[in-house]
Amino acid sequence: MASIFTRIINGEIPCYKIAEDDRFFAFLDINPVSKGHCLVIPKQETDYLFDLDPALLGSLMQFAQKIAKALKQAEDCKRIGITVMGLEVPHAHIHLIPMNSEADIDFHKPKLQLTQEEFTAMAASITQNLLL
Amino acid sequence: MASIFTRIINGEIPCYKIAEDDRFFAFLDINPVSKGHCLVIPKQETDYLFDLDPALLGSLMQFAQKIAKALKQAEDCKRIGITVMGLEVPHAHIHLIPMNSEADIDFHKPKLQLTQEEFTAMAASITQNLLL
Repeated sequence: MASIFTRIINGEIPCYKIAEDDRFFAFLDINPVSKGHCLVIPKQETDYLFDLDPALLGSLMQFAQKIAKALKQAEDCKRIGITVMGLEVPHAHIHLIPMNSEADIDFHKPKLQLTQEEFTAMAASITQNLLL
Repeated sequence: MASIFTRIINGEIPCYKIAEDDRFFAFLDINPVSKGHCLVIPKQETDYLFDLDPALLGSLMQFAQKIAKALKQAEDCKRIGITVMGLEVPHAHIHLIPMNSEADIDFHKPKLQLTQEEFTAMAASITQNLLL
């Protein structure tokens, strides 16, 4: 059965999309730990990030870098942090998290509650800053 | 002034080294959030990870992948998680963290206390599993 992320890529489940190319896809996390929190994934459905082919892994990180640069311009933050845990969804994904302090990257605190309008505006703002 | 990590690379500050090549360096975090917690860094002193040249960033991730594979063999864990925060030391670094649950990647809990012998044995165990 396709992972929830593959179903998002295929448009079977809606998302706040930021960007995609032939190999990668970026969209907003709907349970954000900070405003602008994104997920960057390979279209290839591989459970564990470090099982990816090294060339694909390197390219995934370069795609994430482009998203992170746009995200940093769109959100008022010091930098974009990274987390990869991967025990929840069996499809490798990189969390990109706008940070002003280490507390902003805490997955154990309550998630932000945002409206559909806020998510839509945020995705548009990041996409506008994107230079793919 | 050189960052603490540049001083570690240069051997001016001791560390529990795991591996290095001409561009990258890996060593144990002495304040581990889980057993085997490593840091992977570029030798080039750049503060913010996403300011690295894309080619170097991709290669850094591939170097981290090799360390992560060795680390997973050396430690009893489900997978190796990643965190990049980077507000503490102005020299880009990737945390590689052996995980069995998301709680293992929590930077807000007390750090593990290990002896010098435990750190030395852990670094040797990871290095033995390394195929660079």
